[in-house]
This record gives sequence, structure tokens and C-alpha cells, in this order.
Amino acid sequence: MEAIGMRDRARAFVEQDNVRNTILGVIIFNAITLGLSTSSMVTDQIGGLLSVIDRAVLAIFVAELALKLFAYGWRFFASAWNIFDFVVVSIGFLPDTRGLSALRGLRVLRALRLLSVVPQMRAVVQALLDALPGMGAVIVMLSIVYYVFAVMATLMYGATFDEWFGTLGRSLYSLFQIMTLESWSMGIVRPVMIEFPMAWAFFVPFIIITAFSVLNLFIGLLVNTMQTAVEDDAEAEFEQLRNLVRSETDIIDEHVKELHGEIRALRAELAAARGETDG
Amino acid sequence: MEAIGMRDRARAFVEQDNVRNTILGVIIFNAITLGLSTSSMVTDQIGGLLSVIDRAVLAIFVAELALKLFAYGWRFFASAWNIFDFVVVSIGFLPDTRGLSALRGLRVLRALRLLSVVPQMRAVVQALLDALPGMGAVIVMLSIVYYVFAVMATLMYGATFDEWFGTLGRSLYSLFQIMTLESWSMGIVRPVMIEFPMAWAFFVPFIIITAFSVLNLFIGLLVNTMQTAVEDDAEAEFEQLRNLVRSETDIIDEHVKELHGEIRALRAELAAARGETDG
Amino acid sequence: MEAIGMRDRARAFVEQDNVRNTILGVIIFNAITLGLSTSSMVTDQIGGLLSVIDRAVLAIFVAELALKLFAYGWRFFASAWNIFDFVVVSIGFLPDTRGLSALRGLRVLRALRLLSVVPQMRAVVQALLDALPGMGAVIVMLSIVYYVFAVMATLMYGATFDEWFGTLGRSLYSLFQIMTLESWSMGIVRPVMIEFPMAWAFFVPFIIITAFSVLNLFIGLLVNTMQTAVEDDAEAEFEQLRNLVRSETDIIDEHVKELHGEIRALRAELAAARGETDG
Amino acid sequence: MEAIGMRDRARAFVEQDNVRNTILGVIIFNAITLGLSTSSMVTDQIGGLLSVIDRAVLAIFVAELALKLFAYGWRFFASAWNIFDFVVVSIGFLPDTRGLSALRGLRVLRALRLLSVVPQMRAVVQALLDALPGMGAVIVMLSIVYYVFAVMATLMYGATFDEWFGTLGRSLYSLFQIMTLESWSMGIVRPVMIEFPMAWAFFVPFIIITAFSVLNLFIGLLVNTMQTAVEDDAEAEFEQLRNLVRSETDIIDEHVKELHGEIRALRAELAAARGETDG
Repeated sequence: MEAIGMRDRARAFVEQDNVRNTILGVIIFNAITLGLSTSSMVTDQIGGLLSVIDRAVLAIFVAELALKLFAYGWRFFASAWNIFDFVVVSIGFLPDTRGLSALRGLRVLRALRLLSVVPQMRAVVQALLDALPGMGAVIVMLSIVYYVFAVMATLMYGATFDEWFGTLGRSLYSLFQIMTLESWSMGIVRPVMIEFPMAWAFFVPFIIITAFSVLNLFIGLLVNTMQTAVEDDAEAEFEQLRNLVRSETDIIDEHVKELHGEIRALRAELAAARGETDG
Repeated sequence: MEAIGMRDRARAFVEQDNVRNTILGVIIFNAITLGLSTSSMVTDQIGGLLSVIDRAVLAIFVAELALKLFAYGWRFFASAWNIFDFVVVSIGFLPDTRGLSALRGLRVLRALRLLSVVPQMRAVVQALLDALPGMGAVIVMLSIVYYVFAVMATLMYGATFDEWFGTLGRSLYSLFQIMTLESWSMGIVRPVMIEFPMAWAFFVPFIIITAFSVLNLFIGLLVNTMQTAVEDDAEAEFEQLRNLVRSETDIIDEHVKELHGEIRALRAELAAARGETDG
Repeated sequence: MEAIGMRDRARAFVEQDNVRNTILGVIIFNAITLGLSTSSMVTDQIGGLLSVIDRAVLAIFVAELALKLFAYGWRFFASAWNIFDFVVVSIGFLPDTRGLSALRGLRVLRALRLLSVVPQMRAVVQALLDALPGMGAVIVMLSIVYYVFAVMATLMYGATFDEWFGTLGRSLYSLFQIMTLESWSMGIVRPVMIEFPMAWAFFVPFIIITAFSVLNLFIGLLVNTMQTAVEDDAEAEFEQLRNLVRSETDIIDEHVKELHGEIRALRAELAAARGETDG
Repeated sequence: MEAIGMRDRARAFVEQDNVRNTILGVIIFNAITLGLSTSSMVTDQIGGLLSVIDRAVLAIFVAELALKLFAYGWRFFASAWNIFDFVVVSIGFLPDTRGLSALRGLRVLRALRLLSVVPQMRAVVQALLDALPGMGAVIVMLSIVYYVFAVMATLMYGATFDEWFGTLGRSLYSLFQIMTLESWSMGIVRPVMIEFPMAWAFFVPFIIITAFSVLNLFIGLLVNTMQTAVEDDAEAEFEQLRNLVRSETDIIDEHVKELHGEIRALRAELAAARGETDG
């Protein structure tokens, strides 16, 4: 029970606005020091200081995440944003063996916490990710076509153009390059056509199919976004109109009902009159 | 009659869910083995096995298509998807004469059966193809412009720049490259302008005309898709609104009619009263 | 008067469906022979025949246009399509002095008559041209920015990079290339930055401004097209709805009026009854 | 008070249509002379004249802005357009020290006053700028991602590829180039992959993330523009429909109320009749 009391207090602490803002400040400060550490002039002069700062920032992040882990328990990992924070901070502890540069580079990913800590940025990233499922079927189709063309390219041109199509991986990379249209003709297809004059019949359809698919991906995405936006507005307008129709007709109906009452009263009076006359 | 009974049974068999799923499994398995066959390390070790698998898969596909052909008769060819399956499987039987690599490559097209067998994928491809007819007129226009520019390029620059514009085919290819903007200036037009200083007056309009046409193609496609999507929603909303207007006014009308009845009754009573008074 | 009769007959003749179709056939036939004339193998064998065909086709076109000119008089030039036909056919008569190739190339423009003769193609081209005025203001803005950047580039980099920015014309061409993003960095800006390290501050804003303007051009065009399309549909739906509201309310109003009549009749009867009672 | 009178007169003067048009004429004239000054042939012949014209134009602009400053006082700087005019004219007075060419180039910015003086052009530029705030969040997100990737690239590849990633600035420039897809693979990533075979795992995600973000930027912009345009139309249609519903139902309601009156009169008459009968 005491532990739970501690947990509640820990949670209350990490959810405080000024704690969040402090963390945000540390992230921005770290982003700047990481940027400064790219300059050899700066590292020559205050390289030691930057290194100390980096370790201090890492300590702060670790303390923050440890506190959150303690506060939320396993539910901490229920949020993809927490997992993201956990991973990019953990990178700072990777053993420094595979050459310095790659690791020093990956450490910078920590600055992407700016996206996970600021709610507005989270919303933007969320919106981008939300767009993906709607594109699912076309992405799967594109992946199948892409894979089949890559296997074909490896089998057909791999032996002759080892650098570009020697392995499935190289073919996938080269076809991605061709899909972005970068140097596709002068750089790749024209040289290939010297050996295989019909190579255009492989690459031109590939470009047209992928371009058309990407275009449709984009159109699908756009139509979805537009439809949602327009629909919400239209929905509101229609609702307003329906309410107007209802209220206006209700007023008339009310008046008609009053008329009814009036006539019924009239009939009652007439009946009374007849009674009197008869009486 | 027995044959027809056989046919019905064959049809029932190929349309079974687990038969379809087995075929799908074979296609995916074959897609993976075809991918593995691109690695010389793998083919060195289990090349014989892969070859056996390939022939086994081909046998399964042939059996499946033969069964379908038997089950559906000539109607088998009524579906473009069946023709597609038939063609990509048939490629596996092409004689192995024109050099190994091209053929080994084309065999991989078989993996595209993933698109023809999975209904969701069929729907995506169908949607892409459905977009084409709406683009028909602009594509024809673009083709005419493209052809005329290619003939012009061949006649004007073919003699001097044989590699790029020597034949109509080369011009068509080079103009496609220019249309994708790949190395159009540094790679093609600047060298051409050394010989023909006015060549920009040919290529810049070509780029602008084709870019503008492709843009309009895209806008047309987008507007069509959007319109269909928005219209369906709007149609439903309007239908709902129309029903509301009808039902609300019908209620009033009903009440007004009741009023009518009431008044008619009143008149009858009054007439009766007058009859009594008169009597 | 006889001349006018002749004119009417000429007009009736050129407007006949089979005359139009014959001309269309000649254009297509000429497009093919022009295409064939790009092949030196073909011209070696039937070059003389192609030349005769070309002169015959030209004669037919001249006869057709002469007839139209006679039939319509000066009004012939009221149609931009007629002017287009007139110009592309006239090119065939240009003296053959400035080297053969350019002229042989321009003659091919004649095949673009396919666009001016087929009504559907006319409609597509018309639609493309109709999109232009709506883009007017942005195009003027883009032209001003483009001109100012070209003058600046010539003054700043012209002396050092004569080939790219030596004259205003060369700058305009190079900036067009940069606008299409072709080799802008590796080909142009990186070499310029060796001499002028701040050149990125000129070219990167140019790319961003023009890309953003072209994007807005495109968005403006798209929104206009979409709006027109959606509005027409919505207009029809709203019209239908308004008619429904009117007819439904008219029915009620009719019934209410009938009620009015009924009550008035009732009052009349009551008055009659009172008269009787009084009498 | 006299000064204020002077100010009013100054304001009235600079706001006169023919004063504005004169200034516009001077700007266009100056744009042409600046363009002419790029031609060494022209400057050899009338370079002195162009120089005199340039100083005269500058004098006119200074007089115009001085008059405006006097007329509006500090409120002159309340308009961004005035600040723009002030800055681009001021450039003409910068001391001519840092080499001639850059300064001569910057002076040409003056011709952009065409955008600030013509109201239609102002509107176009305003529309472009108005689009920016809606794109704010995505631009911030893109900037963070862009900065993080640039720091990473500098730390990972800076030592080996000094020209491309040696400093943060160079990395930012190179990543901008990669974002525009210019020579990204053949020019940059393939050479980098020779030293760092996994470099594709850095650059391909960068391309996909930035392309997808820019796409979403564009979609957001488009949907906003479209929504505004469609909504305004729909709003008008709905308003019209609401008015129709109101007016139609009001007519019925009016008739029902008349009916009410009629019936009330009837009851009154009946009561009177009963009174008579009773009396």
C-alpha cells in the first residue's frame, strides 16, 4: 500500500507541468549541444564539457523514464510514445564497439523526443501514421510488384551488372532509385541497354506501374482526408437543416393541433347548443 | 451427362476455400524460393532442390489450371484474371533457347499470381485499371503529341545524335526520359544545344506541354475519384433529408386531413341540427 | 450571287462527314508515312515514294484549306483551329534553305492536325487551354520572380560561369533546369559554390519559392476544377430538394386552403341556419 | 497643424492613381534596363546611360518612399509591403565593397516591387503567405526531423565525406539536395555506401519520411483550400434552402392562422347564435 502511495506520488510528480517543461528544456538544450558537437572547432575547445553535458542529460532522461516505469508499471509500455522514448534513450548505453561514428550518430535520435514530448508534435505524427492503414492495400500491391521486379532484375541483369543488380538487396535499392527517377536512364537503364537492348521493356513499365500506383496511393489518401473534412462540415449543415425542417413543421403541426382543439371545442359547443335547443 | 457431373464436381473442388488457400500458400512459397534462387550462395548449396521445387510448383499450377479449364470450359477465358494466370504459368514452358537469364527472369512473373488470387489485391488492381478509361482522351492526346515530337526529334537531331535520336524508337525512349525530367538538360539538351543552339525551343515546350498534360490527367483522375466519393455521401444525406421533408409534411398533411374530417363532421352535425330545428 | 451559291456549296461540301473523315484518314496516313521517313532503311528503299506521298498530302491539305477559305471568307481566321491548320500546312512551303533537318522536322507538326480535326481531341485541348486563365495571376507572379532571379544570376555569376549564366537567355534556361530540379545541385549549384560559397542562399530560396508557387498553381487549378464539378452536382441535388420542399408544402397549403373553403361554407351554412332560426 | 496639413496633402498626392501608375511605369522601365545591363554588348555601348538611369530611378524611389514616410509617419512601417519596398530600395545604397557582382545582383531585387505595387500581385503573394500558418505544425516537425538527420549525418559521415557532410551546414545542404531527389543515389548515397554499406538504412528512410511529410503538407494545404472554397458555396446553398423552408412553412403557417381566425369567428357567431336562440 505504501508502494502504491509512492507510485501515485511519482505519477503526480512526472505529470506536473513544470516537470514536463523541464524535460522539454533539457531535450532542446541537448539538441543544441548535439548540434554543437558536430563542429570540430567547438569540440576542440569545449569537447570535455559537451561530453559531461551529454552524460548529465542521459542521466536526467534515465531518471525520468525510471520514475515513469515505477509510476506506471507495465502499463508504461502500453504507449508507443513511451516505447519510443525508452528505445532512443537506451541507445546511449550501447557498448561503443562498432566504430565510434555510427553510435555517436544514433545517439542524436534522442532529440526526436521533441516529437514525443510536445503534444502538438505528437498530433502531427499521429496524423501521418493514421494515414497509413487507408493506404494498406495499395502498399501491399506495390510491395509485391516491387519484389517480383527485384527478383526478375537480379536473375536477368545480376550476372552482368553486379553492382546494381548482383543481389536481391542491390536490386531492391536500385529499383527504389529508379522509382524516384534519379539517374534512372543515363545512370542505369542506358548502360544496361548496351548489353540487353530490350531492357527498356522491363524498366519503362516498372516506372509507369510504380508511378501510377504511387499516384493512386496519393489520390486515395487525399480523397480520404478531403471526404472526412467535407463530410464533417456537410454533416453539421445537414443536421442544422434537418432541425430547421423539424422545428418549422412542428410549429405548423402545433398550430394545426390547436385548430383541432378549437374545432373540437366548436363541436362540443354545437352539441351543447343542440342539447339546449332540444332541451 | 457424366462429364457434366464431373465438371460440377471439379468446379466445386477448385472453388473450395482450402483449395484456394493451398494454391495461395504455394504461390507465396514459390515467391520465396524464387527470391532465394537469386542468391548464388543458396543456389550453390540447394540449387538442385530449388529446381525440383520449381518444377513441382509448376506442376501444381498446371494441374490447377487444367482442372479449372475442364470445370469452366471456354468460359475460363472470359475472366481476364484467368488469362493472366494462364499466361504467367505458360511462361514456365517456354523453350530455354534465347539465353538463360531473360527466361529465368520472366518465370518470376508467376509470383504476381498473388495479385490475381487474393480478392483484396484483385480489387486494388481493378481500381487502378478502372481509373484508365476516364483518362482515355488525355492519354490519346498525349500520345499524338509524343509521337509527333519523336518523329520531329528523329528528323532534326537523329543524324547528329544517333545514340539518342537515331531511330524513332530511340527518340521515343529519350523523350520518355526527358518527360521524367531525368538528366534532361545536363545529359541531353545542353549537348544538343552545342550543335543546335535553338534546341531549347523544341525541348522546353515539350517538357511544359507534357508536364501540363500529365498534371491535367492527374487532376481529372482526382476530381473523378473525389466526385464519386463525395457524391455517394451527399446522395445519402440528401435522400435522408428528402425523406425527412416528406415524413414531416405527411404528418402535417395527415393532421390537416383529420381536421377536414372533423369539419365535415361538424357540417354534418350542423346540418342535422338544422334539420332538427327545422323539423 | 452565283459566287455566294458556290460558297454555300463549298461549305456544304467541306462540312460533309465523309469529306471530314477522308481528311482525317489522310492525316493519319501522313502521320504514318512521316514516321516511316525517319528510318533510313525505309527511305533508302521507298524514299521517292514517300516524297511523292508527302507532296500529294500537302496538295490535298492545300486544296482543303483553299476550299474552306473560299467557303468561309475572312471568317475562316476567326477560329484558332483554322489558323493552326493554316500555319502547320504552310510550313510545308517554307524555302528549304536553313539546312534540311530543321525544316523536315517542322513539317511533322502537320500531324498535330489530328488534334484539330477530331472533335474529342479539340475538347481535350480546349479544356487544357481553359485552365490557363485561372492560373493567370500566379503565372505572372512566377514570371516576375523568374525574370528577377535570372537578371540577378546573370549579374552575379555570369562573369565566372559563362556557359550557365553568361547571358540573360542562358540564365533563364539554367533556372528553368534548376526549377525542374534536374542536376541542380551536383550539376550547377555545387560548382558555383566553389567560387561563391553563399550561392546556396540564392538558389535554395529560388527552388523553394518556385516549387511553392507551382504547387499553389496546381492547387488553384485543382480546386477550381473540383469546385465546378462538385457544384454542378450539388446544384442539381439542391434544386431537386427545393422542388420537393415546394411541392410538399404546396400540397399542404392546398389542403389548408380547401379547409378554408370548408369553414367558409360552414359559416355560410351557420349564417343561413341563424337566418332560418331568426326567420 | 501646418505640418499635419502638409502630411495630408502628401498622403493625397502619393495615393493618387497617376502617381501610383508613374511609379509602376518606373519599376517596369527599371526592370527592363536592369535586364539590358546583363548584356555586355549593351553595356559597352550605353553603359553610362544605364548607370545614369539607374541612379535616377533610385532617386525617384527614394523620393517616393521619403514622401510616404513623411505622410504616414511611423505607421509607414506597419505595412509589411512598405518594409519590403524600403529594404529593396535601400540595397541600392549599400557600400560597394564586397566585390561588385553580388551587389549589382541584389540591386535587381528592386524589380520585385512589381509584386508590392500592383494590387493583384499583392493578393497572389498574400494568398501564398496565408497558406503558410496552416502548414506550421508539419513544417516544425519536418524541421526537427531534418535537423536530427543532419546532425546524425555530420557525426556519422562527416569525417569520411567532408565535402558533403563535413559541417552541419554542409549536411543540411546535402540533405536538402537528397530531399529534392537530385543525384541522391548515384551522386551521394552509392559513394557513401562504398565506405558505409548500411548507409541506405539512413538515407532511404530519410527520403521516405520527408517525401511523406511533404506530401501531407501538400494534402493539408489542398484540403484547407478546397474546404474553404466548397464550404462557401455550400453555405450559400444551405442558406438559400433554409430560407425556402422558412418562407414556405411561413406561408402555410399564415394560412393556418387565418383558419384559426376563421374558426374563432365561427365560434363567436355560434355563440351569438346560441345567445339569440337562448334569448
